[in-house]
Amino acid sequence: MKMPSRVWLLALNMAALTGTIFGAYERTERNCSATPPYLPSTAVNTSVQLQELRERMLTMNVSAYIIPGTDAHLSEYIAPRDARMAFMTGFTGSAGTAVVTQTKAVLWTDSRYWLQAERQMDCNWELEMDASSSSVAEWLISEVPPGRIIGFDPFLFSIDMQEDYAVILDLSEHRFMPIPVNLVDQVWRDRPPVPPDSLNRLPDRVIQRSWQIKVEEIRVMMRDNPYKPTALLLSALDETAWLFNLRGNDIPYNPFFYSYTLLTMNEIWLFVHTHRVSEDLKVYLNASCTGPLCVQLKSYDSVREHLETYVDQPGVKVWIGTECTNYALFEIITSQEKVMTSSYSPVLMTKAVKDVTEQKILKDAHVRDAVAVIQLLMWLEKVVSDGTETELSAAEYVNKCRSKQNDNRGPSFETISASGPNAALAHYSPTAETNRRLTVNEMYLVDSGGQYLDGTTDITRTVHWGTPTAMQKEAFTRVLMGNIEISRTIFPSGTSGVSMEMLGRRALWEVGLNYGHGTGHGIGNYFGVHEWPVGFQTNNIPFTTGMFTSIEPGYYKENDFGIRIEDVVMTTPAHTQFGHNFLTFDTVSLVPYDRKLIDTSLLSSEQVQWLNRYYKKIRDLVGPELDKQGLHEEKNWMLRNTEPFGSGSSAVCSSSLTLVTLVIALLHNMV
Amino acid sequence: MKMPSRVWLLALNMAALTGTIFGAYERTERNCSATPPYLPSTAVNTSVQLQELRERMLTMNVSAYIIPGTDAHLSEYIAPRDARMAFMTGFTGSAGTAVVTQTKAVLWTDSRYWLQAERQMDCNWELEMDASSSSVAEWLISEVPPGRIIGFDPFLFSIDMQEDYAVILDLSEHRFMPIPVNLVDQVWRDRPPVPPDSLNRLPDRVIQRSWQIKVEEIRVMMRDNPYKPTALLLSALDETAWLFNLRGNDIPYNPFFYSYTLLTMNEIWLFVHTHRVSEDLKVYLNASCTGPLCVQLKSYDSVREHLETYVDQPGVKVWIGTECTNYALFEIITSQEKVMTSSYSPVLMTKAVKDVTEQKILKDAHVRDAVAVIQLLMWLEKVVSDGTETELSAAEYVNKCRSKQNDNRGPSFETISASGPNAALAHYSPTAETNRRLTVNEMYLVDSGGQYLDGTTDITRTVHWGTPTAMQKEAFTRVLMGNIEISRTIFPSGTSGVSMEMLGRRALWEVGLNYGHGTGHGIGNYFGVHEWPVGFQTNNIPFTTGMFTSIEPGYYKENDFGIRIEDVVMTTPAHTQFGHNFLTFDTVSLVPYDRKLIDTSLLSSEQVQWLNRYYKKIRDLVGPELDKQGLHEEKNWMLRNTEPFGSGSSAVCSSSLTLVTLVIALLHNMV
Repeated sequence: MKMPSRVWLLALNMAALTGTIFGAYERTERNCSATPPYLPSTAVNTSVQLQELRERMLTMNVSAYIIPGTDAHLSEYIAPRDARMAFMTGFTGSAGTAVVTQTKAVLWTDSRYWLQAERQMDCNWELEMDASSSSVAEWLISEVPPGRIIGFDPFLFSIDMQEDYAVILDLSEHRFMPIPVNLVDQVWRDRPPVPPDSLNRLPDRVIQRSWQIKVEEIRVMMRDNPYKPTALLLSALDETAWLFNLRGNDIPYNPFFYSYTLLTMNEIWLFVHTHRVSEDLKVYLNASCTGPLCVQLKSYDSVREHLETYVDQPGVKVWIGTECTNYALFEIITSQEKVMTSSYSPVLMTKAVKDVTEQKILKDAHVRDAVAVIQLLMWLEKVVSDGTETELSAAEYVNKCRSKQNDNRGPSFETISASGPNAALAHYSPTAETNRRLTVNEMYLVDSGGQYLDGTTDITRTVHWGTPTAMQKEAFTRVLMGNIEISRTIFPSGTSGVSMEMLGRRALWEVGLNYGHGTGHGIGNYFGVHEWPVGFQTNNIPFTTGMFTSIEPGYYKENDFGIRIEDVVMTTPAHTQFGHNFLTFDTVSLVPYDRKLIDTSLLSSEQVQWLNRYYKKIRDLVGPELDKQGLHEEKNWMLRNTEPFGSGSSAVCSSSLTLVTLVIALLHNMV
Repeated sequence: MKMPSRVWLLALNMAALTGTIFGAYERTERNCSATPPYLPSTAVNTSVQLQELRERMLTMNVSAYIIPGTDAHLSEYIAPRDARMAFMTGFTGSAGTAVVTQTKAVLWTDSRYWLQAERQMDCNWELEMDASSSSVAEWLISEVPPGRIIGFDPFLFSIDMQEDYAVILDLSEHRFMPIPVNLVDQVWRDRPPVPPDSLNRLPDRVIQRSWQIKVEEIRVMMRDNPYKPTALLLSALDETAWLFNLRGNDIPYNPFFYSYTLLTMNEIWLFVHTHRVSEDLKVYLNASCTGPLCVQLKSYDSVREHLETYVDQPGVKVWIGTECTNYALFEIITSQEKVMTSSYSPVLMTKAVKDVTEQKILKDAHVRDAVAVIQLLMWLEKVVSDGTETELSAAEYVNKCRSKQNDNRGPSFETISASGPNAALAHYSPTAETNRRLTVNEMYLVDSGGQYLDGTTDITRTVHWGTPTAMQKEAFTRVLMGNIEISRTIFPSGTSGVSMEMLGRRALWEVGLNYGHGTGHGIGNYFGVHEWPVGFQTNNIPFTTGMFTSIEPGYYKENDFGIRIEDVVMTTPAHTQFGHNFLTFDTVSLVPYDRKLIDTSLLSSEQVQWLNRYYKKIRDLVGPELDKQGLHEEKNWMLRNTEPFGSGSSAVCSSSLTLVTLVIALLHNMV
């Protein structure tokens, strides 16, 4: 599943803007300049909540209130109870910032979501087509008189975000002020409660390191750090879940639970909704004592207060990962000497490198996951020509296939099932309104993944059931070349993804094509489908052995089709002639590409060899699994689709050279 | 000429450390732990200057004094009068920082220079093998008691450097303090004076834009800037030289002169040593008036004072490029509202893109420069077997050849002429002590360049006059593949060099090889040989049409040989099938590579095609120049060395396929 890249987002603007393919029958976007304003049925009436919020703001003397789309853990995906921006604006996209003043209400979001915002918002809201915090800040400067209060909930701002705003607003002499209570929550009467579900510990068979071992590992990193931190604060939800080998269900598609951890050399404080911790779990966590390996359970809501007490002590220093910590916790530590920062906590850095068990089970999960995707592709091949299947029914089918696999825990994100022009829209998922019938005349893109007890998967395949155009074939082949070129490259351990991600684009660039999103992201063991800080963006960490990342180049032709090929790979040692400490990627997603779309004449012999080795691996690993599950038809489908390719241009060469030699010898004898 | 990359420097440590190939006959490094300490003849006695500096420090109550290796313009190359670090330490390397306390004297420098430091310093000085400012700052914390003064000359610190130190030292409660007078200058009695030479204006034939047009261009950028700067301060020496189309001679190899410029919408203040401005030049600069296009000449030493007066006015805001401005000027602007910063000034950004005339004349200079390098290579081929030539004599020869070319103004840097193991040393230039005889048994690397009125050149070729080993051939070919892969790549305008520099390394990585320096740098029109901010490092700006950069991958085998292939290229529009606004590189260095070292079986057909196109270009451009200069032998040498290569593996392919078809047809007829 693709993440937007900071660099490439702009390129997408036009594609998203013009993607109004439904305008033909009924206008689906609002028109606030019409008289009376036109609102589609998807628009949400936000007048009541806006009025109530404005009343609160008046009482508190807040002239403008900023409402981000994230939660207190700065999560990418959020729980329904954290969907404050959606409650206020109607807009349910995953990225955006809303601002309310007494006279105006404005939403900022990026080009992926402009269309969606125009469909979901009523005319109380203006849309600003920019997603940068500087754009919001500059708007605030122009709208709010100096000296007035611009308020925000410090739990919903990252440290960097707060600073970005403060730099601009302080200069303009505004009072940029954290407000201790969330004003939206105060007016959100039917806000969903914290789910009552208990937390779950992972079964021993998917664990190599117990939580005690992990705690000791992290304490060693604290002890070895030259700045001598005395405590580590964990704020991202996957940090605490990883440390204690626990999972929850608080966020759709993500097995997380609301939590913070404060880890010192002698104590462990776990902040959770304590009523959700069963007696068994208390025993597991050694929760009845206060020693160095006892987990003291504290109320989730008391984290600020406890942190405050901790930092009041002399000689303490709290290690904080700035990318995942909210400003509400950071602002407590008023003394510079009591805080030590790094972009990512030692937990995130350690988690990025999977241990041997994690590597093995994550690969295993991908074998079972391949079965589900193969089932989908085989089924579609058979039924699409009947004309009865749609994007939605295909998405349901693959979810159902996954759910039958061992240890499946549902999809890892909302399936992107997109036919024809829909696939050219960034971040499209089908809805009842946009749902498109699948046909042999259109390309089809399916980007989906599963949560399994042993691992998280994420794979994209693009297929064509009829006759692709020359341009579709060329574009698909060049996207595939990008995937292969990154996958097969050999690089020194410690090389950053950003310095090689252009290999994913180069074959496209050669003919003047490109794509407007990032090239890959880390992935977890029954964790987030976008797991930081591994990947190919500028703020990702360098690759070392045992990291998992997706590789997902694409190409999108506006109003026509979209191509993406995504595989998950593991960094693994490469054996080179002269050097050591070199790495390469080992592909763990195991589903063949659509042969019909591959123009082998464009491939180098190295690329064909790579493809054939990959196809042999699919046969070796998925074949036995299909046998085990008794899926004979699927086995035959897989075998048909993993036939080795005749060699590419240069490989043809050596064999044809041999042939030439033979023929010449033959002729020589004849003459 | 290569620049060290921040990322790769570490990899070089070992190569430089063990490069003590001269130890066999006489120890060339100091040994301070021997009794009595051993000092080579190259070591400089620094006792007197140290004692005098310490006396000054005592008087001023300064506990530690920091002496950087740069000048007030943060130049890469400095004039002799700015070689304060060398005067104090004896060490003449181009990068380093010295610190003196009452009891200790320490030099920090990077691995390129450790050996040189051990040869040039006496035992008054310790060597710290780290060049980061944090290493210096941490040493200061450990050596200087809190509350004491750590002094520095604010003219010799960049804004960022000052901040790097301040962040660490302020935390530790030291008094990190700019000292208005330079303490080294006070004890440096025979410090060289400012050279008396007049400044020179460039002839009209090398200029497209007069200084008046450039001033107006920059003013438009100031006017269009949303932060509304009222003035622009130019500190880097090439900024002022570029703006006024002037050159000087103050720094060896660099046609710069001491200067600052303060440009407002209505006035131009040029800070120079005014006695060096001739009457003609005053007329040229319109120096007798005060209007918007009159250049008011001010004394070089009055810049701080004038800037102070300027910023005291209400409503002013000074635009400063932080990478090139010293702290002494920055600290004057105490109000945040009166300063506006960008990494690079609009002058550096504009200068990075050459205008049509600059492009043309810079290419022309490379044609003449190629003649000189071809003369060197041809001559060496003839004379090396005589056994009389050395690294030094070869360097002299190429300098002499260049000096005969039209408009030559000397070399653009000290020629790197390195045979066998010497070429494996980073930043080696031959000296009387290290000079090595050239032989047919060793590889030879020559990295040299010239200053011409119309352009600056920089080219590296590596050759072998005997029989190279298989490893040498493989390494050379892979370095060449790196050079070709970057040169021929097609990329969207606005792509950063850092995201494609791995193409220069990939063929080496494939077999476990690599190199420990950057992959290229910008270059000027009769300017610096390392011209910021163009290039392949993280802090370089994205490529657009009309930029010039070097491409210079390499490979270095410790104690054995060194390979580097460096060409200057221009970014130029690429014509692609589907897209527009794509770029590629056009190589402007025009000297053939050593055929003997190229293993064509490793090359792809695209690489062979690129090579053959490049060789045809050399023939087309350098051929007529050689004719014009009457250099018939050189012409023949060039023609011999630019014979097209038989096609690489895949290219062989298509022709052999045709052959197969023919032969099969033939057989068919026969049977």
